[in-house]
Amino acid sequence: MLDAIRTRRAAKTDSRFTAARSVIKVGKIEIGGNAKVVVAGPCSVESWEQILSAAVAVRSAGATMLRGGAFKPRTSPTSFQGLGLKGLELLFRAGRKTGLPVVTEVMSENDVDVVTEYADLIQVGARNMQNFALLKRLAKIPKPVLLKRGPAATVKEWLSAADYLMTDGNTNVILCERGIRGFDPALRYTLDLASVALVKELSTLPVIVDPSHATGKRSLIAPAARAAIAIGADGLIVEVHPSPEKALSDAEQQLDYGQFEELMKTIRRPMPEYALPIDVASG
Amino acid sequence: MLDAIRTRRAAKTDSRFTAARSVIKVGKIEIGGNAKVVVAGPCSVESWEQILSAAVAVRSAGATMLRGGAFKPRTSPTSFQGLGLKGLELLFRAGRKTGLPVVTEVMSENDVDVVTEYADLIQVGARNMQNFALLKRLAKIPKPVLLKRGPAATVKEWLSAADYLMTDGNTNVILCERGIRGFDPALRYTLDLASVALVKELSTLPVIVDPSHATGKRSLIAPAARAAIAIGADGLIVEVHPSPEKALSDAEQQLDYGQFEELMKTIRRPMPEYALPIDVASG
Amino acid sequence: MLDAIRTRRAAKTDSRFTAARSVIKVGKIEIGGNAKVVVAGPCSVESWEQILSAAVAVRSAGATMLRGGAFKPRTSPTSFQGLGLKGLELLFRAGRKTGLPVVTEVMSENDVDVVTEYADLIQVGARNMQNFALLKRLAKIPKPVLLKRGPAATVKEWLSAADYLMTDGNTNVILCERGIRGFDPALRYTLDLASVALVKELSTLPVIVDPSHATGKRSLIAPAARAAIAIGADGLIVEVHPSPEKALSDAEQQLDYGQFEELMKTIRRPMPEYALPIDVASG
Amino acid sequence: MLDAIRTRRAAKTDSRFTAARSVIKVGKIEIGGNAKVVVAGPCSVESWEQILSAAVAVRSAGATMLRGGAFKPRTSPTSFQGLGLKGLELLFRAGRKTGLPVVTEVMSENDVDVVTEYADLIQVGARNMQNFALLKRLAKIPKPVLLKRGPAATVKEWLSAADYLMTDGNTNVILCERGIRGFDPALRYTLDLASVALVKELSTLPVIVDPSHATGKRSLIAPAARAAIAIGADGLIVEVHPSPEKALSDAEQQLDYGQFEELMKTIRRPMPEYALPIDVASG
Repeated sequence: MLDAIRTRRAAKTDSRFTAARSVIKVGKIEIGGNAKVVVAGPCSVESWEQILSAAVAVRSAGATMLRGGAFKPRTSPTSFQGLGLKGLELLFRAGRKTGLPVVTEVMSENDVDVVTEYADLIQVGARNMQNFALLKRLAKIPKPVLLKRGPAATVKEWLSAADYLMTDGNTNVILCERGIRGFDPALRYTLDLASVALVKELSTLPVIVDPSHATGKRSLIAPAARAAIAIGADGLIVEVHPSPEKALSDAEQQLDYGQFEELMKTIRRPMPEYALPIDVASG
Repeated sequence: MLDAIRTRRAAKTDSRFTAARSVIKVGKIEIGGNAKVVVAGPCSVESWEQILSAAVAVRSAGATMLRGGAFKPRTSPTSFQGLGLKGLELLFRAGRKTGLPVVTEVMSENDVDVVTEYADLIQVGARNMQNFALLKRLAKIPKPVLLKRGPAATVKEWLSAADYLMTDGNTNVILCERGIRGFDPALRYTLDLASVALVKELSTLPVIVDPSHATGKRSLIAPAARAAIAIGADGLIVEVHPSPEKALSDAEQQLDYGQFEELMKTIRRPMPEYALPIDVASG
Repeated sequence: MLDAIRTRRAAKTDSRFTAARSVIKVGKIEIGGNAKVVVAGPCSVESWEQILSAAVAVRSAGATMLRGGAFKPRTSPTSFQGLGLKGLELLFRAGRKTGLPVVTEVMSENDVDVVTEYADLIQVGARNMQNFALLKRLAKIPKPVLLKRGPAATVKEWLSAADYLMTDGNTNVILCERGIRGFDPALRYTLDLASVALVKELSTLPVIVDPSHATGKRSLIAPAARAAIAIGADGLIVEVHPSPEKALSDAEQQLDYGQFEELMKTIRRPMPEYALPIDVASG
Repeated sequence: MLDAIRTRRAAKTDSRFTAARSVIKVGKIEIGGNAKVVVAGPCSVESWEQILSAAVAVRSAGATMLRGGAFKPRTSPTSFQGLGLKGLELLFRAGRKTGLPVVTEVMSENDVDVVTEYADLIQVGARNMQNFALLKRLAKIPKPVLLKRGPAATVKEWLSAADYLMTDGNTNVILCERGIRGFDPALRYTLDLASVALVKELSTLPVIVDPSHATGKRSLIAPAARAAIAIGADGLIVEVHPSPEKALSDAEQQLDYGQFEELMKTIRRPMPEYALPIDVASG
């Protein structure tokens, strides 16, 4: 089975052929090394005040990169579609002002140049994981790419999508697990953490986890983030908003600043103690 | 959504009505308290030598309970079906000799009495999660029940199955997540850790995780076990066999003694460090 | 792949080894021959008046067997659990009075004798498809068994469950597809009709389809029934109730008498016409 | 539930607001009227001889439209990617020569103009169902669009993707069910025919079914096609190749000419007979 998954991947990041993990540089931050990386920020960039406030807050709580959507993929055409170029500029400025490299999604081949100019890490969203025209275009850019797993993508399809980027020249790929489609309506998606461990076994590429989209439920984001780090993820990407209840998108799953600080404590909490066997004599 | 999941559960273990976690006693071991519990042992009891050797080994590595199948639910009628009553006796003796309480599965209403006599914790397997006749029978016994989640069961159905035990009188219920059906053939099941956090939010019952069945792949068991503990599971149930390659069932996913010792180290390893933000001046 | 699915099945009903379809006799009705069979009746037997009225109505509309639940598997212990033995007697009498063989579910090994006495066809419900203790018990009875597919069962697991019945002696097995677990909350289950065609290719056993449970939506039952017959199913099992809105279980998916008559017309409607190619000269 | 699915769709094709079905013209062929439409042809256009031979053969067997891939979305970058513009020209010529309107997939926004010039119906592939940049571009073209359902898309998401086309001006949308992701490795995808009936209830848009991709197994394509027509689909799209075993893509699921002729007979075969109730007196 694993051989079947492995055979077509780029040799450079195939764990059979190299022992070295891929460490990807995003601005001055490294992803894939020993230190875990937390990316945080609002689902959508909504205004200068909002994105600057979020950048300052997440940095102060320990995040080292800033996220924010400018071009938003929304299920319905009548939902808020993002600020576009304006959002890109605001995100860039907030990142530079706080010293945080920025990540944002590109949805169109025609926006690749402008997004590449403004962003330090270019996100391919889950819905576009197999938008091969977009992947081929991103294979030529000088910036790293964050490749989210599609909600119905197998691990093999996910790694093959990364191949589209790498075969054409861009080996600066960071993978992101964000929940797969499952049958239980209790949560938005099914967080597939075992696949994170599997991918790290098959490939040298860094993998981060998005507990916000994966659970879609505020109270589960910190525990899920902690489990992601425990299983070996190289980092997290978390949605944080000054006033989640007023957010123009994903209101249900964004954390406020206090909740994000709590998350940063949760993921650092020591591992617990274990019960000891009962003495046979006394047992 | 959560209200819909919650409405029918037994008040005694509904987290809306009580702050106290349920701590379930299995022999002299407590599950659901601060100390995490590791249950380990072979998929099937195969002989006195095998089960005793396994009991000694898992105890020495830090396990506090012994598992072993006597009545085995197998997909095909031509596969090994377990040693039955003989296996039950061997498991009981190995447990008493090493001071480890024992857990084993009951598959038939007609075996409930004998299994209750020999086992400290009675397992309802995933395939029988909605075998309501069996649940009603187990609601009357004086021993705790380990209720595995069915591979296609929603969280609501899982908690409703626990209701069958509790409504009729047995509130000593421990839940166990062991992987749900997913679309990716890369792994045997999809380990649904977010649901563990969700169930702990909805119910006071302890929840343990079975990383052996959930992944079906030896190298992923320790990382998955670590993530389970990190997300808040109360313990683990792990398959360990003296010679996994000779096992009569589940050969692919049982750990040998050395691998189990490694697992016990993995789940105790400290949480990692995080990258620090770059200084704005220097950035 | 198919070889992997096939290898363990009983030779007698393995399509590699025999060309003859299995024709199973239920009372005086044959399932698996050229004539398709429609089983209909209420989800639960609720009273003498209800079951007799339903039996008369479904017979008059063209059904040849009567269904009705006496022992009901319900997700929650506080839902209506069926009339039990009393329901069994009422179903039997209604069947005898109208000349319709009757099918009902058995949930407990301990009820097998009494259900076998009263029913012409014994149903194993979807939740019990891998209740191997029950299957082994049913392998010894002199009545045919209707084996519903579990909502998370692969075709291989479904056929292996049938093996439990056949290996131990009961080859009078009728399979029933009733929807599998899917990710779309729009419908209750995902009706997997392609698997019906696949099973008919692999095995000689008859397969019927339950469009009521599979869709859970009244308006889709007749179209789904028609598609099931079109793909080669040997029959249908449909829920029909005198007053669906007052039903004690499955109110949403039971048909009233008029709707059932419509269904019987729908499944007989001729196949439609096809567009013709445009003449090249004129095109 | 249905109200939740319905609320955001374009009023013009919402079955609550209009009784008239949408009949879409593709060349001189109408889809969505009383006569069902069969689209057939190879997975990929491979050469002039191949596509012309296929066009002549499928027309002669009763197909009224020709399919053929020029730009191919392949899981791996090392698989055959299609002939591109050259393939488009060959498809166009074969269509004009045989009087069959042609359908082909567009994968990139930058190819929309050229594909619109050559094709009579523009396909959005399953992987691009939520490529919103592409949908917005196709909303402005004067040709109809065939919108395939994503393998993990809910019915609501599918109809919302159609909204992207319609809200911006292109109401000539034909939907296509081609199998969703399921858990059973026995077949490539799970054909979700009940959703076809559901979509026809919610929307006035035509829906066709692709049994080739949905099953991925040659022997099941004709039965699945017949069931699709029986449940109310407005047509079929089927992969047909002169020598399937030599095909450059999807070799396993393409039909040869004889098999396609058989399929055309299968979908026209009359519906079967039903068993009659046994006379009570004699029963």
